[in-house]
Amino acid sequence: MSVKSLEDLFVHTLKDVLYAEKKILKSLPKMEKKASSDELREAFAEHREETQGQVERLEEIFKTIGKQAKAEKCDAIEGIVEEAEELMEEIEDAETLDAALIASAQAVEHYEMARYGQLIAWAKQLGHQDVVSLLEETLDQEKNADKLLTKLAEGRINKKAA
Amino acid sequence: MSVKSLEDLFVHTLKDVLYAEKKILKSLPKMEKKASSDELREAFAEHREETQGQVERLEEIFKTIGKQAKAEKCDAIEGIVEEAEELMEEIEDAETLDAALIASAQAVEHYEMARYGQLIAWAKQLGHQDVVSLLEETLDQEKNADKLLTKLAEGRINKKAA
Repeated sequence: MSVKSLEDLFVHTLKDVLYAEKKILKSLPKMEKKASSDELREAFAEHREETQGQVERLEEIFKTIGKQAKAEKCDAIEGIVEEAEELMEEIEDAETLDAALIASAQAVEHYEMARYGQLIAWAKQLGHQDVVSLLEETLDQEKNADKLLTKLAEGRINKKAA
Repeated sequence: MSVKSLEDLFVHTLKDVLYAEKKILKSLPKMEKKASSDELREAFAEHREETQGQVERLEEIFKTIGKQAKAEKCDAIEGIVEEAEELMEEIEDAETLDAALIASAQAVEHYEMARYGQLIAWAKQLGHQDVVSLLEETLDQEKNADKLLTKLAEGRINKKAA
């Protein structure tokens, strides 16, 4: 990492989210396997496809700005995924595990929302207008994934209360 | 960590955010020192005071639910803060450093927003009605801190464009 300007910070953060997306892509199948509710399993499967598209979108962004699409280790996502995996190993009760899986996935979504929001602002400031809509497309997907997870958490709660 | 039920997951997550708040409390003075814009420095100083209050609120929550207020290592916040500190060491340009500081602080806020949102939902589900408003108070502060940071980022951009 060598960050001397906002352009460097923009590229560094792109590499950070590329790492994060690839990490999540590997983690989602494990989460899918552990989920006990059908809706949650489907949500993870769907988000895995979306994440694959997000990786491709990032590669397109790197190409557009003339930089190499290289992932750079993102300690934040490492930590979030590590926490998620510890919980997955620890929890046996299916209901509790689903709640923990939803929570872990939402922590991931929130991290990504923060990063893509910043990338969009910086892309505009740096005159990279041609990548703004690609970044916005991914940000919208992350926001929708987060909303769906909230809905699943509430659905789970309502079902239990009924 | 031993998580067998949603109640355990709730308490585990409270310990996780207690660790996170304490970690941030230690990190904010460093960020304040590194910030070059007066508004950003003030925002960090103010959020440090808020964070102190959030720690006290968490201690009150532990007391209310009859559990010991014990922090449990949170890998996610460790990772986010580690990234922030690497950038703080690496970046010399003041404008770029301020942008990176804002971005790091927003990653922290987003992590906390995800966690407090989940804690509120679980507190309601578990019948811990008496701690919901305390958690909501903190969540509102985190949301406002995030909004203020976005405003500062935009202000910085507009000032530069002027």
